[in-house]
Amino acid sequence: MKLSARNVLKGKVKRIVHGSVNSEIVVELPGGVEITSIITKNSAENMGLKEGSEVYAVIKSTSVILASD
Amino acid sequence: MKLSARNVLKGKVKRIVHGSVNSEIVVELPGGVEITSIITKNSAENMGLKEGSEVYAVIKSTSVILASD
Amino acid sequence: MKLSARNVLKGKVKRIVHGSVNSEIVVELPGGVEITSIITKNSAENMGLKEGSEVYAVIKSTSVILASD
Amino acid sequence: MKLSARNVLKGKVKRIVHGSVNSEIVVELPGGVEITSIITKNSAENMGLKEGSEVYAVIKSTSVILASD
Amino acid sequence: MKLSARNVLKGKVKRIVHGSVNSEIVVELPGGVEITSIITKNSAENMGLKEGSEVYAVIKSTSVILASD
Amino acid sequence: MKLSARNVLKGKVKRIVHGSVNSEIVVELPGGVEITSIITKNSAENMGLKEGSEVYAVIKSTSVILASD
Repeated sequence: MKLSARNVLKGKVKRIVHGSVNSEIVVELPGGVEITSIITKNSAENMGLKEGSEVYAVIKSTSVILASD
Repeated sequence: MKLSARNVLKGKVKRIVHGSVNSEIVVELPGGVEITSIITKNSAENMGLKEGSEVYAVIKSTSVILASD
Repeated sequence: MKLSARNVLKGKVKRIVHGSVNSEIVVELPGGVEITSIITKNSAENMGLKEGSEVYAVIKSTSVILASD
Repeated sequence: MKLSARNVLKGKVKRIVHGSVNSEIVVELPGGVEITSIITKNSAENMGLKEGSEVYAVIKSTSVILASD
Repeated sequence: MKLSARNVLKGKVKRIVHGSVNSEIVVELPGGVEITSIITKNSAENMGLKEGSEVYAVIKSTSVILASD
Repeated sequence: MKLSARNVLKGKVKRIVHGSVNSEIVVELPGGVEITSIITKNSAENMGLKEGSEVYAVIKSTSVILASD
C-alpha cells in the first residue's frame, strides 16, 4: 500500500498504555528515537498491536512544527 | 520553553527546498531517520534555518497514525 | 496494510488538478459523494494517481468537525 | 453560514457512543458511506445530536491522506 | 449553524495576501489579537472575503498546543 | 525558542479541568478572548500549569478554518 503522507517511519512498538477509550503507543525508531501516538483502543486491538510489533508511524509533513533555540 | 506536544524530536536540518510560499525542511534524527516538515517560507527565514541547523520536530501524538502490514 | 485511522473510505479519483507544489485530488465515493484531498505533487506522482484510479481517503476521526443548522 | 473547509458533507447521525469526555458520532452519507467523528461530549450535547439528526461532516482537504494498493 | 469545534472566535479580516493557490487571511479579534489562517484561494473567493469582513476563526481544541517559558 | 507555527498567542490560564487522561485548559488572551486547548494530563502536569500561569497558545495557520454568516 502506498500513502500520500511524506513521513512513513518504520519502527517497533516499545510500550502500550491502554486507557478506557484511547491507547498510547510508543514506537521506537532505528537509532532509538521514540515517537508517541494516541489512537483509539479499538484500533489498537483491531491492528493486534503488542510490544515488539513492527509498525509504521505515518505523519503528514504539514503536521510537523519546527522549533529552534 | 516547555511544549504540551508529546513528540519534541531533536535533529539537524539536512535539506531545504524553498517554494514560492512554503518551504520543505528535511530533519535528520539521531540514527539517520528523516522527518519532512512543510512550513511557510516566512517561518523558515524568521527562524534562520539552514543546512546543519539544530532544530526540534514537534508533533502532537494525535497527529501520528499507525500502520501495520 | 492496516491503519489506525477510523475512516478509510474506498473511492475512485474523479479529477486531479496539479499546482506547482501541491495537487488537488477529488475522490468520488460510492453514492456520488466527493471528497477533496490536497497532497504534494510528488506524492501524487509517486502513487501514480490518475483519473479512475482506485484510492482510499484516510481521515482520522478527530479531524472531522460536525456542523448542524 | 459559509465555511472555508473544502469538504462539507451532508449526512445523518446513525449512531452515537458517549464516553466520559468524548463522544463518537457515526454519520451516514448518501449512498451509505459512514464517517466517524470524535467530538467532546459537551459539543454533542450542545448541538443536540441524536440518531437521525441532519449534520454536516466538515473536513479540511489537507486532513485527507490518500492510500492506494 | 452550530459547530462541534470548541473555538469559534469572532473577528474581522485585517489583511489578505493571495498566493497562486492559497490565501493568507489575518483575522483581528476583539482586543487586537491577530490570528492567521491559510485557506485555498478558491475558498477565500467563494466566501467573498475582503478587509473588514466579519468572520469566525474555527479551531478544534485538540489543534491548540500550549507552550510556557 | 522560535516556532514555525504562525500563531503563538500569549495569554493566561483561566481554568483547568482535569479528566482521567486529558486536561482541558482555557487560556484568556488580552482583550478577554478565550481559547480552549485539550492536552494530555501528563503534559499539563509536566508544564506545571495552574490558574494564572502565563502560556502561549500555539496554532498552525493551516489548522484555522474560517466561517462567515
